[in-house]
Parts: sequence; structure tokens; C-alpha cells
Amino acid sequence: MFYTDNKLQYPVRVDSPDPLFARALQQAIGGVEGEIRVAMQYFFQACGARGNPKFRDLLMNTAAEELGHIEMLATAVAMNLEGAPLSMKEEMAATDRAVGAIMGGMNLKNLLSSGLSAMPIDSDGVPFDMSHIYASGNIAADMTANVAAEATGRTLAVRLYNMTDDTGMKDMLQYLIARDTMHQNQWLAALEELGGMTGAFPIPNSHPQAEEKTEFSYAYLGFQADGSAPAPGRWGEGPSIDGKGTFATGKLQPSDQKPDLGMARPGSGAQAEQIG
Amino acid sequence: MFYTDNKLQYPVRVDSPDPLFARALQQAIGGVEGEIRVAMQYFFQACGARGNPKFRDLLMNTAAEELGHIEMLATAVAMNLEGAPLSMKEEMAATDRAVGAIMGGMNLKNLLSSGLSAMPIDSDGVPFDMSHIYASGNIAADMTANVAAEATGRTLAVRLYNMTDDTGMKDMLQYLIARDTMHQNQWLAALEELGGMTGAFPIPNSHPQAEEKTEFSYAYLGFQADGSAPAPGRWGEGPSIDGKGTFATGKLQPSDQKPDLGMARPGSGAQAEQIG
Amino acid sequence: MFYTDNKLQYPVRVDSPDPLFARALQQAIGGVEGEIRVAMQYFFQACGARGNPKFRDLLMNTAAEELGHIEMLATAVAMNLEGAPLSMKEEMAATDRAVGAIMGGMNLKNLLSSGLSAMPIDSDGVPFDMSHIYASGNIAADMTANVAAEATGRTLAVRLYNMTDDTGMKDMLQYLIARDTMHQNQWLAALEELGGMTGAFPIPNSHPQAEEKTEFSYAYLGFQADGSAPAPGRWGEGPSIDGKGTFATGKLQPSDQKPDLGMARPGSGAQAEQIG
Amino acid sequence: MFYTDNKLQYPVRVDSPDPLFARALQQAIGGVEGEIRVAMQYFFQACGARGNPKFRDLLMNTAAEELGHIEMLATAVAMNLEGAPLSMKEEMAATDRAVGAIMGGMNLKNLLSSGLSAMPIDSDGVPFDMSHIYASGNIAADMTANVAAEATGRTLAVRLYNMTDDTGMKDMLQYLIARDTMHQNQWLAALEELGGMTGAFPIPNSHPQAEEKTEFSYAYLGFQADGSAPAPGRWGEGPSIDGKGTFATGKLQPSDQKPDLGMARPGSGAQAEQIG
Amino acid sequence: MFYTDNKLQYPVRVDSPDPLFARALQQAIGGVEGEIRVAMQYFFQACGARGNPKFRDLLMNTAAEELGHIEMLATAVAMNLEGAPLSMKEEMAATDRAVGAIMGGMNLKNLLSSGLSAMPIDSDGVPFDMSHIYASGNIAADMTANVAAEATGRTLAVRLYNMTDDTGMKDMLQYLIARDTMHQNQWLAALEELGGMTGAFPIPNSHPQAEEKTEFSYAYLGFQADGSAPAPGRWGEGPSIDGKGTFATGKLQPSDQKPDLGMARPGSGAQAEQIG
Amino acid sequence: MFYTDNKLQYPVRVDSPDPLFARALQQAIGGVEGEIRVAMQYFFQACGARGNPKFRDLLMNTAAEELGHIEMLATAVAMNLEGAPLSMKEEMAATDRAVGAIMGGMNLKNLLSSGLSAMPIDSDGVPFDMSHIYASGNIAADMTANVAAEATGRTLAVRLYNMTDDTGMKDMLQYLIARDTMHQNQWLAALEELGGMTGAFPIPNSHPQAEEKTEFSYAYLGFQADGSAPAPGRWGEGPSIDGKGTFATGKLQPSDQKPDLGMARPGSGAQAEQIG
Repeated sequence: MFYTDNKLQYPVRVDSPDPLFARALQQAIGGVEGEIRVAMQYFFQACGARGNPKFRDLLMNTAAEELGHIEMLATAVAMNLEGAPLSMKEEMAATDRAVGAIMGGMNLKNLLSSGLSAMPIDSDGVPFDMSHIYASGNIAADMTANVAAEATGRTLAVRLYNMTDDTGMKDMLQYLIARDTMHQNQWLAALEELGGMTGAFPIPNSHPQAEEKTEFSYAYLGFQADGSAPAPGRWGEGPSIDGKGTFATGKLQPSDQKPDLGMARPGSGAQAEQIG
Repeated sequence: MFYTDNKLQYPVRVDSPDPLFARALQQAIGGVEGEIRVAMQYFFQACGARGNPKFRDLLMNTAAEELGHIEMLATAVAMNLEGAPLSMKEEMAATDRAVGAIMGGMNLKNLLSSGLSAMPIDSDGVPFDMSHIYASGNIAADMTANVAAEATGRTLAVRLYNMTDDTGMKDMLQYLIARDTMHQNQWLAALEELGGMTGAFPIPNSHPQAEEKTEFSYAYLGFQADGSAPAPGRWGEGPSIDGKGTFATGKLQPSDQKPDLGMARPGSGAQAEQIG
Repeated sequence: MFYTDNKLQYPVRVDSPDPLFARALQQAIGGVEGEIRVAMQYFFQACGARGNPKFRDLLMNTAAEELGHIEMLATAVAMNLEGAPLSMKEEMAATDRAVGAIMGGMNLKNLLSSGLSAMPIDSDGVPFDMSHIYASGNIAADMTANVAAEATGRTLAVRLYNMTDDTGMKDMLQYLIARDTMHQNQWLAALEELGGMTGAFPIPNSHPQAEEKTEFSYAYLGFQADGSAPAPGRWGEGPSIDGKGTFATGKLQPSDQKPDLGMARPGSGAQAEQIG
Repeated sequence: MFYTDNKLQYPVRVDSPDPLFARALQQAIGGVEGEIRVAMQYFFQACGARGNPKFRDLLMNTAAEELGHIEMLATAVAMNLEGAPLSMKEEMAATDRAVGAIMGGMNLKNLLSSGLSAMPIDSDGVPFDMSHIYASGNIAADMTANVAAEATGRTLAVRLYNMTDDTGMKDMLQYLIARDTMHQNQWLAALEELGGMTGAFPIPNSHPQAEEKTEFSYAYLGFQADGSAPAPGRWGEGPSIDGKGTFATGKLQPSDQKPDLGMARPGSGAQAEQIG
Repeated sequence: MFYTDNKLQYPVRVDSPDPLFARALQQAIGGVEGEIRVAMQYFFQACGARGNPKFRDLLMNTAAEELGHIEMLATAVAMNLEGAPLSMKEEMAATDRAVGAIMGGMNLKNLLSSGLSAMPIDSDGVPFDMSHIYASGNIAADMTANVAAEATGRTLAVRLYNMTDDTGMKDMLQYLIARDTMHQNQWLAALEELGGMTGAFPIPNSHPQAEEKTEFSYAYLGFQADGSAPAPGRWGEGPSIDGKGTFATGKLQPSDQKPDLGMARPGSGAQAEQIG
Repeated sequence: MFYTDNKLQYPVRVDSPDPLFARALQQAIGGVEGEIRVAMQYFFQACGARGNPKFRDLLMNTAAEELGHIEMLATAVAMNLEGAPLSMKEEMAATDRAVGAIMGGMNLKNLLSSGLSAMPIDSDGVPFDMSHIYASGNIAADMTANVAAEATGRTLAVRLYNMTDDTGMKDMLQYLIARDTMHQNQWLAALEELGGMTGAFPIPNSHPQAEEKTEFSYAYLGFQADGSAPAPGRWGEGPSIDGKGTFATGKLQPSDQKPDLGMARPGSGAQAEQIG
């Protein structure tokens, strides 16, 4: 169950409204690296968490935090849109940019659909699609997905931080970057509790590896047209990271099987020539 | 540049065609955990890789492998669909299941759109959306995304393996599970080359951490309604996983700022009551 | 800012797990009439609310409630999935249905992607798309959208209630139906505060109606091929509902303008025959 | 069955072609507030209308009108695109804006995909998704959805009207705004025929309210972290709008149930640690 | 401008309602091969047609026809859904199929979202996406897209015809198949008017072929890993179909260029190791 | 099975990086007319090809070629993005365009999501959706879909060629345009092998035409509101293109059937007024 207090988690200040930066911030709301994604991902992972309940608690607690981040960013978007022109006449009165450059550079939906407010869309106006909520029912797979989400999330926040000169916006982003630092570490720590590299991997660790084709389990195979080996690296020699094998390098021999589906069945809508 | 040889990477055999299992296999083609996703993700990461070219080579080499996995699975889907009924009359002639259970249990598009062939859709008929191709321009973020992709991918392959009794299909899945084992290890090895936990994290490691709000960088904060701390764990104490801080546990004090956008502007399409 | 307490808003009990009902419940989570939709819609409307702050508070308070509804439903989905078969062997052991009828009737992603947990998808496995979050920047338009959302939401809840015999599920749905009753009334009450039918409409009420083509503002026009009037009703006579006009019935006279774009420009990629 | 006469419903005139305004107009074609949406929504509601056939007729008649609106807007988009540059050279020859500002401000698909013609996309180039067609099988729910669609539709048309100085475009929009005025009134009138606030609500009115948890049906509940009541208003006291209850204000007591799914099943793809 | 007469273009009769066939018919409404697609494609092509106006008329006339096809199919879907169970109790009373086979085999949205009516979705419940409306601004490209649309459309109609035993449904499909026969021929005839194979191709025929790399314009190139030529055929020898060249068969020599983006720029969010 | 050699199929050179042209090129990668579409379409058609195996080989061979085109274009996008500003400060230092015109004219995701690299999105930032992969199981329908894909593909390439002045980019596009010329001819040649106009059409040619309503099979029907015939042309007289009938022109007489679904069933969620 959730509660709110109508306060912002961290202060949001915009010194100089910039509609183009509003557009950029939309990526942190509705982009695949954004806050809706992590809020909903942790939420659904929590709802499906089986086993030790502490992971459910950790996930739902962080989901609550991320909801507050969406709220902060949505406020920041609306504040940056305050100065947007509503008409060509207003655009022409803004002297520091060429005619059309402000409106043309905005997500027009931020004006036309939402009346100068934030939307669950990315920086090019594409709505967020909830298929990006990875909640696998495997707690270790979920943790790796979360590390990945926070890695791209912090990368995005850093790019936004580098893009703006607004000290208010920079201050807010410094906070969000710090939280992403923590969250990357937090999910890595959870992976450590789950056994770390050698205990949790290969995910899922509940599958008996003896049943897989073990000759392919730690082989770095080349798919180079001339049969050469691809770039060498840690992945081609030495003990495997999961501690359960030794990396080898090789080249796959294709099977002799040429895929052949034969003729089509009558009544299947194929051309007459395809039907046996 | 790419080449093909019209052979299957590993033999695909179906002992007893099963249209419902064809539907399940579609998840491994067009699901977010599937092979189109990894093939295209590694492909686009390779195309955008800057810095040491060995990562580009590693990525594109593996993309070529994954393209062959799509081909294998698409062949397996078509072979499992061979026995599907094309009409109610055929359905009724199939004696081992109730009328309607086969057709009703299939993705109907596998019959109606593709004529008993594979499609780039998931197990519920939803087409794959390329927004799932994570290629961030940050090589370490890409590697974490790849570990996550292979973790969910191997989990899916294991579930498919557990679902079927067909020895041909089990054999093919044993191969794919083994490759997912390797790929999880491979991307973890790449992360190790990039500095491992303490060198690569927090991602991006090129951002000067002094500029972030460091008091929040390693703090495990509670968002519990009653002010209590959430579930304790490795994430709340001890050195941080990235080796750059020490975990602490606390509770966030909200800012005093209540979000307030004030009145709407005339001409912005708001109600009269909202306009100042 | 948001908080959680890891308790369910209302008890969730499943007497007899039913994977098909789990699929149906998914519509109430990730369908366009579902709880993600209302939670996020009220959230974003709150974040963009300008003018009297009481509407922001009302919206965000209700958003918090709806988040708890998602949590309840996600728990219900997972509980209904408990009895789902993981393999054909398990399916065959379940004696009360035909082979394939359970698995074939499920959203397979609820097994293959989430390991028997809820997902942000609808009852046919389609992920929720955030373009359904209507937050227009016009508070009255938002309220009408909310009435519509709760009308379809309660209709869905009633259909689910009628579908199941499980007393636990019926109890939970009785609660959700009651809340939808309240929410329909709540948004209608907000419309009343905004002036009701004659004060709030036509939305937006800030546009000077003198500037619209008033001869078309209250005319019920027929588009019947034989020139006859369509079905008569309240919409064709008497005072308009907004109190600002009188309904009339007529037939539109098309303009004489035949749309004609002329020839295509050289270099525009048209066929030679199209280029002037 | 449908017929056409190749004439425009109302004249479309563009005095000064503006590619950026073409982009804005796309929102009124393919945006969620646009004309495809209402045309198809009324069409599908008509096709599924059960009960008194006059509602089917009303809906299909208005669908025919809205198809003509798409045609008008598509013509307007193409006419506004007439002056778009096809090359950097042409762009540089246009002297009133900065290089790149015209092309950069357009939907590039309006040039690259459609050769300076309209598309079923919104103002940021996102294609219309037919999941926005609300046709619920409940005639009152449909009418509320239609009021909401016309409320956002008229808000959009007003914003477009405010954005442009082109007298031809303003004239066309004055017509469309007037029709939206009528359509808002028309669907409200239909709701009145269906019993109005007290007869039609709560929707669906065919569900026996005695079966819902009536103690929650008219209670305005607070979800404030500190237990305080949220903003007071008409929704918290007095008779309910549907005339069937009395508003009360309170605070929800969470259930004691902590969601707990227990351990995962063997073979479900969970980590070993999650399996009982 | 459009008109309607509330009559069906061709009679729609269902002898024995079948909810599974209703699901199959949805593909012909909202599938990518379905009637919404062709109706809207011809509509938008008409709206963007430049050059000889007879193509606009032809297109819009056929769009009007296709709108009537959607109406017929939507009626057929609703009629087939008449017998669908609304509850498990009703399902159990239906004796000719296993419990769960009917509901599990339906698109549940046809019950839960639309109350036993048609929706703009395909046979697996996926909503139609308007990005499938191909309207290129090149009249010959449009005609080829239309031939393709009608080819897949008629294939689908034939599959539906083969699937059912219902004489009413078979009769309706015989009509739709015949119209698809005509429409394939109609668009081919339009291509003939546009110059046929040698006049219209390569599309666009307005591009001066001398500016393309002509040594690659009619060469059938092999991309076989062992350097062998792929399957021979008409495409590898003889005059080209457009009459402007001669087919030759060869093997592409890759360029010597290895793609290399060099180092990443500081501030671009890359890892430190990628930055020069 | 697939192989790579890490070389570009044809040289990619950018003389003067242009972030706006990078955006335009994205259409050729992730647009519906782009290279992902053809690569994956030929791939899936090959995987589902039944009958004469030479078509499978032809398709998969061309799929391999198209994968190389994606690689070329992705490289071109990244090279054009090299000069993009990362911050407002950098933007202001670029003197040849107005402030905001470069960033505002870009797909911001090319900066924020991918760090100046290509993505599987179109020129307005919309991700490619794999529902555009037409693979019908009917080889002739597939070939017509391929002609259509290459027709829109070459039209797009010509538009890009006309847009830029960069000689490197023009050279690359001359190559791609030539390949599109070949591919249009190649698929037309395959249609010729399948019997050409009179042998392959109407598609599918395996359906006995005697079972369709032949009086409608070659009739050009008018749907004009005033009953007049639409624009005359080759499609209204003379032998049909498929050689199996004679075109006639007429006007459809609607059926007498008015669609009427009657009353709604109790328990279906309709309003009380709709229930019989």
C-alpha cells in the first residue's frame, strides 16, 4: 500500500526555463532508461518475489523512492516549459533564437497534448511501453536487470547534467546521479547476497548444468567468414567467471542439416506451386 | 558484412509436432528475452562501439552467432506447426485433445498471417519492438545489459526445456542453454577487462563523483510509511561494491518544497479557472 | 514523495487457483481500463495541475490509492497462477480439463517471462502503453477523462466479478467495484466544483465562443447517403446541455472544394508522371 | 456502408504554407486527441451497440462526419508542407529562418516517408495506435469516453488555433472547434437520455450495488503519509452525484495481510535460493 | 466527405456462433492484412495523391468500399460472440468442449473490454498500429503496396474460409475473396496505366539512373560464406524486368574499410577507457 | 548460419558531419521503408519458405546482404553525429546555425540513449516494430510484399540523396539506390518464375475461384454518394490483368440487412437499458 505527502523528495529549481531541456528531461521520465521504468520494474519484481521476503521489501522500498523521482522530474519539465511560446507571435518575440527553433525543437505534444506539462514519453515524444518492465520470477536475473537499468539510467543523468548550464537543474541532477550510484551498488550487493559471481551464475542456478551441452558451455566460438578467431580477451582463456568451467576458443562446425520444410499443405493458403 | 551458408548451426529435430510448443518457442524468437533481441542488441552495440576495437569484434561475432539461433528456432516453430489443424474439421479429427483446444491454444497469427511458419512475435502474439535494443554508447553499461539479457534468456530456455517432453526439442534447447551459459560468462569477462566491480562502477566511470551529492551516493534510504528501516542486508552496511564508499542506512527527509506550478497562461487551453 | 508499508490495502484471498482467471485479471492491471492506467493518469495529471492546488492533492491522493490496487491485483494474479502446469506432464496430471486447455488458455508470458507472476500486460498479453495516460493540462478535460476511465474500469471489474465463482476473488472485486463507484462520483463532484455542465462546458471554457463558427456549434447534422436525418433524440432539439445554445437538426452542405494538391515537385521522390 | 463525394466538408485554405504548423496539425490527425480516434471510436461503438438502435445510428452518423474531418486535416497538412525544403540547398535559400530550423522542426517522415503528405501520426511522428478506440459494450461508458475524447479534442483544436496566424487555417479551425462544441453537447445529451447522472451512474448501472462493499462506495479516503485528510471538496461531503449515497471522508485502515507468495516451485526457472 | 446508410454492403449471417472463429475474424479487421489497413491506406494515399486526379478518385472510392468491409466483419465478430460464456458456470454448461477451452481460446478482450463486440485488434488481441499505412507520395510505390496488401488480404480470407464450416460465414467470405481478386487486378491495372513493368520501374522512375552506381543495378550478388553462387534463377540472367539492363551474377568484394569510430568524446557518457 | 568479416560492404565516408542528416538516415535504418525491415523480412520469409528451395536460398542470401546495409548506415549515422553538440555551450560555439537548431533538430535519443550512435529507430525517434515483417507463407504474396518494400525503400534512398550535399554520403546512397534497383527487379523476376501476372494472380492461386462470388471478382464498383461512377481507367474495362476475367464497371446495391445485434445479455456489463 502506498502513501504520499505532496512534498518533493529533493528541491527542484529552474533558474532559466528552457523548453529544449524540458524535452531532454522527458527521456529521464519516459525513456527506456528513465524513472517510470525503474519504479514499475521494482514494483512488479516485488509483487512477484518468491523466497526470502527481504528482497521483496528492498524492491518495494526502492520503488517508492523512484516514484518520487518521477514526480521531481515531471515538476522540472513543467517548470522548463513555462517559457515556451504558445504561438508564432510569441516565438518571434523571443529574440535569442531563430523563428521556429524553439517550437520546432520541442516535443510538440508537451504543448498540444499536455498544455506545458510532463508526459510519460521520451525525449522524441515516444510513449513509454511497459514491456520494458523486466520481472522474471528469478531474483538473480532481476538483480542483473536492475544493475543494467541503473547503469543506463546514470549514463543518461550524466548526459543531461553535461547538457545544461542551469544551476538549479544541475543541483537536482547531482542528487539523482548520486542515487543511481547507490542503486547500482545496492543491486550488486543483493547479487553478492545471492552468492555473487560463482554462486548466482549461470542464472538460473537451479538448472542442473549436466543436462546442458557442456562442450559449448565455456567455448568462445568464432563466426568469422574466413574462419579466423575473433578478438582475443579474457573471455577466451582462463577460468570462467562463474567458476564452473574453463574458457576455450574455437570455431563452430555447422551441422550438416539444411533447413527444409518440404511442401506446403493443401488448404494452407500457399501458392499452388508450393503444395505437394 | 555478413555471409550465410544455409546450414543450421546445430541440428533441429522435432519428434512430435506440437502447435502449443510452437507458440511457447515464439517467446525465444520475438520475446523480450529472445534471440532477435540479443542479435540486434549486439549488432547495434558493435556499430556504435568507440574505443578499443576488440569489443566491437566480440560483439559483432556474437551477433552473427545469435542470427543463427533465430534461424534454428524459426525452423523449430515451423516444424512444430506441421501438425496444426487448418480447419474445425481437422481439429475434430485430432483425437487427443478437446475440440478447440489446439487452435484456441495457438497464436492464431502463426496460422492466419504466416501459414504455419515462425514470426517475429512473442508467445502471446505480440510483435517484437526494437526499443528493447539497448546500445548506450557506454561499453560497460552495454555489458551489464548483455549479462541481464542472457540471464533472462537462459531462464526462458530452461523453462522451455522443462515444458517439453520432445527429445529433439530438448536436445536443441540443451545447446542453446549452454550457449547462454557461455554468453553470461563472456560479458562478465568483458566487464572484468573493463576493470571489474571496482574499476567499471559506478557506470559511467568517466563522471567525476565529486560533482554528485555524495551524501546520497552510498546511503540505503527507507521509504516506509511508519519511518522504519526496510529489510537489512549487504546493501546497508560495509564497503560499497564499487569500493568507493561505505554503505549507510537512513531515512530520507523530504524537502519542504510542495510542487506548485501556479496559474496557467492565457491561451494555453486550460480552463478559465486555472488562468491567472 | 511516496511511502509504502508492505501491507495490502484490502485482503487478497484465492480459494481455488485458476490460471485462466489470472489471465483475465491481467486486464485489470495492464489493460487500458486497468489500474496502471488510472494510477499513472492521476499521477501525471497531478504533476501538471495548474490553478487551485486542491485538485493536485485530490489527484495525487487517489494515485496513491490506485498504486495499492495494482499491488492487490498483482498478488491475486500470482496466487491464481500457483496451480499452473509447468510442463506437459503436469498438464496431463491435471484431470479436470483437456490436455492443452490450461496452458493454451493462459498468457504464456505469465509463465515464460515472469515465472508465474503478474506482468504489466493485458488479458491477451499486450503490454500497457503509456500513451493512454491522458493529462491534458485542462483540469475539466482531465476530470471527464477520469470519469470515462472509471466507467470502463468498473465495467471491467463487474465482468470479472461475474466470471468467477471463487469467493475470495469475489470479495476482493466487491471492494474494487465499490472504489470505482466512489471514484466515478468523485470526479463528477470535481466537475461540479468546476461549474458543472453549464460552467465547465464546452471544454476548454476559456476559449471565446464568438470566435468559433457558431452556426455549427449546436447543429445536429446528418451524413446519411440519402439525405435523410439520422435517429432523432435529445441531441437534436431543445436547449444544449451546456446552456449556451439550442440544438437544431440539419444536413451539411459540402463545400464546393475538391481537394487537389496539383503536381508533385521535382526531387520529391514522386513518379515522373506526377511531376509538373 | 459508406459513400464519398470527393468534396471537402468545409473549405481548406492555407495562406502561407508552414511546415512546422503541418507538424502541429498532425496531432489533430494521428494524436490520441485526434480525428482518427473519434472516427474509429464512434465506428466501433456503433458496430457493437446493443439495445436501442438509435444510438447505433447516432454513432455511425457522427463517424461519417469525422472521416471527413480527417480528410480536411490531411489536405491542410499537405498544403502546409508545400513550401518545405527538400534539400539543404533549398533550406539555405529560405531566408527567414536559420539553417536547419525548418527541416529540423518538421516531422521528417512527412518528407521521407510520405513525400510531403499527411500521415496517421501525431505531432512528434508517433503512429496512432488503435488501442485508443474505446468501445466498451456499455453504451453509457461509451458516451463518457466520447465526452472525454471531444473535450481533449476541442482543447487541442483551440491550441492549434492559438498557435497560427494563418487566416485560412484559423477559419478551418473555427469550424472544427464548433463541431467539437456540438459533439461534447451531443454525447452529454445522449447521457441524459440514458438517465443522466442519477440514472446512468455508477456505470454499469446493471450491477446490483448491494453486492459491492458499500462501506467503501461513497467514502473519500486519505492516503497521506501523516494520516491527514487530503484537500476537502464537494467529493467529501453531501449527497453523492449519482444520488445513491452520501459522501463521507475517512482514512483507509490497511489490511493486516502482508503479501507473501512463499517459495518458488522447482522447475519454474527461479534461483535455487527461492525454491522450497 | 463521407456518408453512410446503415446498411450492410453484403449480408452477414452466422448459422452457429463460434467464439473461436470470432477471434480468427479479428485478424481480418485489425491484423496487418486486414480491412482497417486497406481502408486507411487507400484513404491516406488519396489524401496525398499528386498528379492525375483519377488516382485520387480511384483510391478514395475504394477506401469507402473497405470501410463497409470493416462494418461487415465487425458485425460478424459480434454475432459469433453471441454464444460465448460469460462465466465459468456458463462455460461448464456448454457441453461440446472441455472446460476452459472456449474462454481460453477467445481473445479475452472481446469479452472484458468490449462486452462481446469487435475491436480494432488482431486474432491474438494486438491492436492495429497505423504505421502500417503505406502512403509514400509516389503513386507507383503506393500501387505496389496495394497489390501486396490485397495479396496478403486474400490469402487471409482464404485461410478463414478454409477454417470454418459455417455456411453463413463461408458465403460472406466468398464475397470478400472476390473483392480481393478485383482489388489485386485493379491496382495492377493502375500500374499498367503508369507504364507497367518497363515504364514504372525502378520506382521512383523520376530518379536519373545515371547517378546510381550502375555496375550494381542489375547484378545478382552472392553472400555465401564459401563464395559460391546462391540458387540460380530468372533473376541472374537475361534482360532485367524493367527493361533497362541485363541481369548478371557475381560475388560482392567487400570494401577494405573496417568500421572504426575511434575514441569517444569527453562528456559523452562513455566509460573512461573509451575516451581519447 | 551467419558469418561476418568486420568489413563494410561498400565504403562509408562523411565529408562534413551533419547531425540533422544523421537523423534523416535513421529512417533508412529503423523506418518502415528501412533496412532492418528488408533484412528481417527476407530472413523470416526464408525460414518459412515451403516448396522449391531455391526461393529460400534467394531470400536468405539477400537477407545477408541487407544486414550489411544496416551496418553501413549505422556507421554513417555515427559519423554524422561526430560533430553534434553535447551541451548548450558547445551549441553556442557552433556558429553556422541558431542556438538550439542543431540539438532541437536531432533525435535526442541519438545523444541521450546511444551516446552519438545509431539506433533501431526512424527519423522521428520511433523504434522499429517487427509487425512490419511480412512473411505470409505464400511465396507469391511474399514477392509482392518485397517489391513494395524495395519500391518504398528506393524512394526513401532517393529522397535522402536529394537532401544532402555531402559527396561521401551521396556516393554511399548511389550504391544503395543501385541495389534497390536490382532488388525490385529480382523480386519481379521471382514473380515471373512463379507464373507472372496470369500464373501467380490472384494470390493465392491455389484457391478454386469457382468458390468465390464471381460476379464481384472483376467488377469495378462505385461508392459515390450521388451514384455516379468514379474515375474511369484500365481497371474498369478490358481483360483483367490476371487473364481470368473481364473488367466491368458498376455500382453496388447494398444488402437490405441493417446490422442489428439486438439486446445485450444479462451479466455482460452493459447498461440496464441495453439488456433484454
